[in-house]
Amino acid sequence: MTLNAVLDRIDADQPDALDRLFTLLRFESVSTDPAYDEQVRAAADWLVADLRGIGLDAERRETPGHPMVVAHGGTGGPHLLFYGHYDVQPVDPIGLWDRPPFDPVLRETPNGTAIAARGAADDKGQLMTFVEALRAWKAVNGELPSRITMLFEGEEESGSPSLVPFLRENAEELKADFALVCDTGMWDRETPSITTSLRGMAGAQVTIRAADRDLHSGFYGGAARNPIHVLARVLDGLHDADGRVTLPEFYDGVPEVPVEIRAQWETLGFDETAFLADVGLSEPAGEPGFTVLEQTWARPTAEVNGIWGGYAGAGFKTVLPAEAHAKVSFRLVGDQDPEAVVRSFEAHVRACLPPDCEASFIRKGGSPAMTMPVDAPEFGKAREALSAEWPRPAIFVGAGGSIPVVGHFQRVLGMNSVLIGFGQRDDAIHSPNEKYDLASFHKGARSWARVLAALTGRA
Amino acid sequence: MTLNAVLDRIDADQPDALDRLFTLLRFESVSTDPAYDEQVRAAADWLVADLRGIGLDAERRETPGHPMVVAHGGTGGPHLLFYGHYDVQPVDPIGLWDRPPFDPVLRETPNGTAIAARGAADDKGQLMTFVEALRAWKAVNGELPSRITMLFEGEEESGSPSLVPFLRENAEELKADFALVCDTGMWDRETPSITTSLRGMAGAQVTIRAADRDLHSGFYGGAARNPIHVLARVLDGLHDADGRVTLPEFYDGVPEVPVEIRAQWETLGFDETAFLADVGLSEPAGEPGFTVLEQTWARPTAEVNGIWGGYAGAGFKTVLPAEAHAKVSFRLVGDQDPEAVVRSFEAHVRACLPPDCEASFIRKGGSPAMTMPVDAPEFGKAREALSAEWPRPAIFVGAGGSIPVVGHFQRVLGMNSVLIGFGQRDDAIHSPNEKYDLASFHKGARSWARVLAALTGRA
Repeated sequence: MTLNAVLDRIDADQPDALDRLFTLLRFESVSTDPAYDEQVRAAADWLVADLRGIGLDAERRETPGHPMVVAHGGTGGPHLLFYGHYDVQPVDPIGLWDRPPFDPVLRETPNGTAIAARGAADDKGQLMTFVEALRAWKAVNGELPSRITMLFEGEEESGSPSLVPFLRENAEELKADFALVCDTGMWDRETPSITTSLRGMAGAQVTIRAADRDLHSGFYGGAARNPIHVLARVLDGLHDADGRVTLPEFYDGVPEVPVEIRAQWETLGFDETAFLADVGLSEPAGEPGFTVLEQTWARPTAEVNGIWGGYAGAGFKTVLPAEAHAKVSFRLVGDQDPEAVVRSFEAHVRACLPPDCEASFIRKGGSPAMTMPVDAPEFGKAREALSAEWPRPAIFVGAGGSIPVVGHFQRVLGMNSVLIGFGQRDDAIHSPNEKYDLASFHKGARSWARVLAALTGRA
Repeated sequence: MTLNAVLDRIDADQPDALDRLFTLLRFESVSTDPAYDEQVRAAADWLVADLRGIGLDAERRETPGHPMVVAHGGTGGPHLLFYGHYDVQPVDPIGLWDRPPFDPVLRETPNGTAIAARGAADDKGQLMTFVEALRAWKAVNGELPSRITMLFEGEEESGSPSLVPFLRENAEELKADFALVCDTGMWDRETPSITTSLRGMAGAQVTIRAADRDLHSGFYGGAARNPIHVLARVLDGLHDADGRVTLPEFYDGVPEVPVEIRAQWETLGFDETAFLADVGLSEPAGEPGFTVLEQTWARPTAEVNGIWGGYAGAGFKTVLPAEAHAKVSFRLVGDQDPEAVVRSFEAHVRACLPPDCEASFIRKGGSPAMTMPVDAPEFGKAREALSAEWPRPAIFVGAGGSIPVVGHFQRVLGMNSVLIGFGQRDDAIHSPNEKYDLASFHKGARSWARVLAALTGRA
């Protein structure tokens, strides 16, 4: 049986597969910071070369920002588009890493061996599970299971500014029967999952300016406006005492969680206490009356992701700063409109401004929330394939994160996505000491081989 | 007449005096940041050598922090203690400086030639006015006008942690008939002033911690506590809508401004509009019902001098940070107790903490406000001497800044201080592009020669 041969091949090729992933992890492909532009580019070039090695017709494709990697191979239906991203989050605070974030190593953990590096789980390790599945398939069968297009993005962690124009300009080339996306997690180490709802995203960086220079708090304190105070008022005003967002019309388009979905989530046996205790917390901080799964999968949020202004060095400096800044982002659900949310935030800031203060904004690319049509046949096939690989049957879950590409595929290319990933809750993505389980990497590749076989009917 | 010869000598020695000041300004003696420890020490050593050159018995004296410079010379009464500080404020934001802060130059400004460098006005340029006056006196007369002790501190900009223990341990050596302090400003370019009241200072750095690591706002957002939100609530809660500080008992010990003092300040012709417009502002931000002079000289404040937490780099990072931080300081008046104010602030923070959050504090050394006994004879003599040097008569003024040493001299050594300085409002101390007017440096030295003559009766 072809599938078993492919799985055996994946097993046998693990040492080389790990070498390849380590090579990819060594590129410091931080997309948010222009200082790393060369490294982002080098990661793209390495992927092009690797895909060509499998016989795909791969290219680095330029955009106004970081390049895309696009590759084609195979013939016959269905036409599958696989998506992943090769850029990574910034590494700060660098002082909290146990070791250099771009020097991958295998590390023993209480839950088994893990691959430790920035990007190991988000998303380099994940995208390579699919590449390794294809490589094994090609090695065993001499050809790919069907027509396959690969799209690797280099701007996912910086708002994907080039993605929609790129999809529009190359719609004919990229439109497939459906998309496969590997940028999500498993329910737990035994239970694979397919993510069927995602929160959307909106955000903006705000700068509040008062005096035209930093002032001495002795000379001016008491008479001059302090923009940090104004910013504190702005940010404190975003939530009421119950943690509910106060922006007008913010909850327009936020649906009640349907009774049957709420019931299904209750069967998952999610341990709120353990989930919070894992990161040193004991009480849910969100709106009362919702479970933690609801708070993170089905409720919108407003979060300050960064704040700075004035003196932050050692000791004290009695300054009234000229400026104060914050980065604020919103997780969206249902039909919330990212554009309307950011406009409402900007209006809230302006309404808080006292005399002599002005505000300016840098908007973050937004995306609405998404819900997948789980009755389509590929969802059932994928679930069955995953269930064959792992100890427990696969489940459909929601997700609190945003994967804007899924919305863009639907709106620009009219294409649904099957979201399968092998991340674990303790992967520390976006945090110091990110890792990816070695089992996720290995069994992830095997899972994709099974899913490919199921979706193409080739096994 | 001896005084005239001393003044002539100061005039003739200006080029060399400026060279000496430039040498002192080149030391990067930032006391708040341990990275500059060597430079602080080097500045102290240079001062010791320079004072020995005038024939003073000068030494670097160790403390648990940065060293003091102590020098003695002259005989006969009155015994005068001169105080200045050779440490400087940090230079950030470094990007806003027109040129390197520790590479002094002469710069033409609309108000005449200025000495541009960090520390030019606060306080190296000021302390050297006194040193140059002494040097000229010694050159002309072969001896100093009376017994003189010099005390130069290296920790003024970092809360003077070693000062009180040093004064206690060396009380007999340092106690003089009264102190002369050069760390204040003139009322305007024509009007010298003696500062007779100073605001006190209290402060603390607060850190709020929630989760034990940075979290992904997609996974945890809505369920996990965001310490930046808690910090915003803490800081927003420090003031009511009128800008009044809300801490319980904060206004205990804050006096009404006496009618006669208020009347004297009104005669100063202070132009509030111009004062604010000079830094790009148009409306006083403080408590209604008080003039700007009252707000800055006679009212207490709570100011956030710095805030940071989460991601502050280019682009966006959707993180829920583990920690958020702020530096908060209070300007005090009347009988406000610095210790009680900081305790009250800490209690306010703790009262704002939701579950799973903890707060920690680093206290800043505090000092109560001070009022000088202006009826003592040395105040009248000094005012007369200053009036002879400048176009307009000298005046008594209040000050919004804190010069804790004045309080320590009074409480530890039982000694009053005469505060005379030659800074101008546009000196940008504690800010980028600090400068000191060349006229302040030159006429400041001449002023001290006149004050020494008047106080010692030697001219």
